[in-house]
Amino acid sequence: MTEFIPPATLFHALPSPFPMKRGGELHGARVAYETWGQLNAARDNAVLIVTGLSPDAHAARNAGNDEEGWWEAMLGPGKAIDTDRWFVICVNSLGSCKGSTGPASINPQTGALYQLDFPELSVEDGARAAHAVVQALGIETLACIIGNSMGGMTALAYLLLHPGAARSHINISGSAQALPFSIAIRSLQREAIRLDPAWNHGHYDDDHYPESGMRMARKLGVITYRSALEWDGRFGRVRLESDRPDEEPFGLEFQVESYLEGHARRFVRRFDPNCYLYLSRSMDWFDLAEYAGGDVMQGLAKIRVERALAIGAVTDILFPLQQQEQIAQGLALGGAQTEFVPLESPQGHDAFLVDFERFAPAVAGFLAKL
Amino acid sequence: MTEFIPPATLFHALPSPFPMKRGGELHGARVAYETWGQLNAARDNAVLIVTGLSPDAHAARNAGNDEEGWWEAMLGPGKAIDTDRWFVICVNSLGSCKGSTGPASINPQTGALYQLDFPELSVEDGARAAHAVVQALGIETLACIIGNSMGGMTALAYLLLHPGAARSHINISGSAQALPFSIAIRSLQREAIRLDPAWNHGHYDDDHYPESGMRMARKLGVITYRSALEWDGRFGRVRLESDRPDEEPFGLEFQVESYLEGHARRFVRRFDPNCYLYLSRSMDWFDLAEYAGGDVMQGLAKIRVERALAIGAVTDILFPLQQQEQIAQGLALGGAQTEFVPLESPQGHDAFLVDFERFAPAVAGFLAKL
Repeated sequence: MTEFIPPATLFHALPSPFPMKRGGELHGARVAYETWGQLNAARDNAVLIVTGLSPDAHAARNAGNDEEGWWEAMLGPGKAIDTDRWFVICVNSLGSCKGSTGPASINPQTGALYQLDFPELSVEDGARAAHAVVQALGIETLACIIGNSMGGMTALAYLLLHPGAARSHINISGSAQALPFSIAIRSLQREAIRLDPAWNHGHYDDDHYPESGMRMARKLGVITYRSALEWDGRFGRVRLESDRPDEEPFGLEFQVESYLEGHARRFVRRFDPNCYLYLSRSMDWFDLAEYAGGDVMQGLAKIRVERALAIGAVTDILFPLQQQEQIAQGLALGGAQTEFVPLESPQGHDAFLVDFERFAPAVAGFLAKL
Repeated sequence: MTEFIPPATLFHALPSPFPMKRGGELHGARVAYETWGQLNAARDNAVLIVTGLSPDAHAARNAGNDEEGWWEAMLGPGKAIDTDRWFVICVNSLGSCKGSTGPASINPQTGALYQLDFPELSVEDGARAAHAVVQALGIETLACIIGNSMGGMTALAYLLLHPGAARSHINISGSAQALPFSIAIRSLQREAIRLDPAWNHGHYDDDHYPESGMRMARKLGVITYRSALEWDGRFGRVRLESDRPDEEPFGLEFQVESYLEGHARRFVRRFDPNCYLYLSRSMDWFDLAEYAGGDVMQGLAKIRVERALAIGAVTDILFPLQQQEQIAQGLALGGAQTEFVPLESPQGHDAFLVDFERFAPAVAGFLAKL
C-alpha cells in the first residue's frame, strides 16, 4: 500500500497502545502529516487541516514535494490559507491508506495486514490522533482548526474532546451528526463493496480485488458529491463521440456516464476498500448529540472556541446546508462569535474542492480577522 | 413470469408486426390493461393512466380483482379520479414484465425468451402501444391522459405522436427530457445489474438470478425516490433493535438501512432484471427536443391539448420540479390552458404514491373543471 503515500510525508508515532473509542487499541500506530510555513516563537500561528474521506496529507506543494496538492488553490504563500502567516499542518486520517495506520497497515501483533481485524474506527479516534500530532509539534493552542466534509466532523470532535485546543474553527461542508440520507448513501456504497465476491470479507489482494464494488461505490459517491444543477449545464444530454461506441449492452452512451467512469477508474486502485469501509462507517456513527443526552445542539454548545465560521454550498445533498447552519447555531450557543455563510456554488458537496472563487474569500476573510 | 400479472388483467393484441422507434419490430405482442367505470355513449369520458417504471395495470380494485391497487387512494367511486364519472384505463408499459410484452416474454419467432433479443425500447413505443389499446376500446379522444414519473414522459410522447388524442393532460412528477443527474442514477442502477455475474448478459433464470444487482438497483432507486427531509423526520438516527443485530461486518445498523433492505427484498424477485434495464434506458433516451431541432420547449409547444396540469413535489431530486414547470410552460406555449402546481410534499419523487393529501385535491380539482 506504500504507493498511496505521497513522498516527503512526515509521520508521528502515536502513543502505544492507542485506545480506540469503541474498544480495542492500536499498537505502534502512526499518523501521516505534512506542514507548510513556519511555527512562530509564540507557537500561536498554527492551523490544522483535517480532511474528507479520501485525501492524503499533501494538501499543497511544499518543500518536500513539488507535486500539486488536493487543496493547492487554497493553501500557500499569499493564498486564502496564507503560509507566509500561518504554520499549517494537514493530517491524513487515522484509518486511511495514505500513510496513517489503518486496515491496510500491518498489524504488528500478527505481522499480517489488519484487514477486518482493525478495531472499530470512530471519527473521535481520528480527532485524538490528529491532536497527538499537534501536541508533538509543541503546539498548545491552534489558531484555527479547519475541517472539510468528514473533516468537519473530525474538527468538531477535536474541539469537544480537547477544550482550549483551538481559538477558532472553520467548518466547511461538515456536519454535527450523520443524517439518514447520507447514511443510506454510504450504506449502499459499503454494500456494493461487500457484495463484490472479490472483497471476500476483507481478504483481497491486488490480483483478487473488489474492483466492481469500488467502482460502484465511487460512482455513487461522485453522484452525491456534485449537483444536478452543475451537471445540467456541464453535460446536458451530450452523447459520447460516435467513433468510440460502447459495444457492451446497456453500455456508456452519455458524457455524464463517461465522466463517472473516469472518476471510478482513477479511484478504484488508489484507495483501499477496507479503509473505505471503516472511514465510511465512522461517519455514520458520528453524532455530537451523544455528548449531550441526545441533543445535537447542546452537544455543539459544549464546544469552547472563540470564533467560528460554518460554510457550505446550497447545492450540497450529502451534507446539506442546514447542517452547517446548525453548526453555526450550536457553536454560537456555546459562546463562540460565529458566522454562517451559505455559498451559491453549483458544485454540491465537493464545491470546496473546486469553487475557489466562492470558498477562498470566505476562508481568507475569516482568517484575516484573527 | 406469469406470477407478475395481476388476475383479471385484460390484454390487447398489438398490430403484428409492431414496428419499434429505434428499429426492429414485435410480432404477436400484447399490452396488459385494466379498466374502471363505464364508457358513456358519447365515448368522451375516458381517462388513460400511464405509469412509472414498475407498476402493473392494477391501479385500484375493480370488478375483476378486489386486491388493493398501487393508486387505490386516487382512483375509485367518489375519489380524485372519480370512476362514477370517468371510464378509466390503466395500461402496463410495453417492455414491462407485468403482462405487456417485454424482454421477459416469449419471442414467438424463436420460442425462447426475448431477453436481450428484445428490440431497443423507447418511451415512444410505449406511448404507441397505449394508444392502440385506447383505439381498440373505440375511444377517439380521451378526456384526459394522466402520466406519473416515466408515465409523464409516455403521456407527452402520446400527445405529440397522436394529435387530438386527448383534450386534457395531467403530468405528475414527469419530465420532457432526461437530465444528467437522473441519467447518472439510472446508469448506475443498470451497471449494478450488469456487474452481477448472475445477470450473464441477460441469460439468467430463477436459480441463477442477479439478485445482488437488483438489490443495489432498487436501493439506489428508493434513495432517489424519497427525500432527505422526509427521512430526517421518519428515521433520524434510530438504530435497529439490539436483539436483532446484523452479524455481518458492516451490516445493517440504522433503521434507514433496514427500510432500504425491506424495499429491496420486496422488489428483487418481483421485477424482471432485463425489463428493468430496457425501461430504465428508455427514460434516458427520452427527449422531446428531438422533435423540435434540439429545443425542448419547442418540442412541448408542438403538443396540442386544450388544458393541462403539471404537478410535482418540491423535494423531488429525480424529476425535479423545474421539469414540471418546464412542461407547463411548454404546453402553454403550444396554446394549452395550463396550470403548474408545486406541492410541498416531503416525500420526493414518490410523493404521488403516498401524499394523497396534496396530490388528490390537485388532480380532483383539475378533473372537476373539465
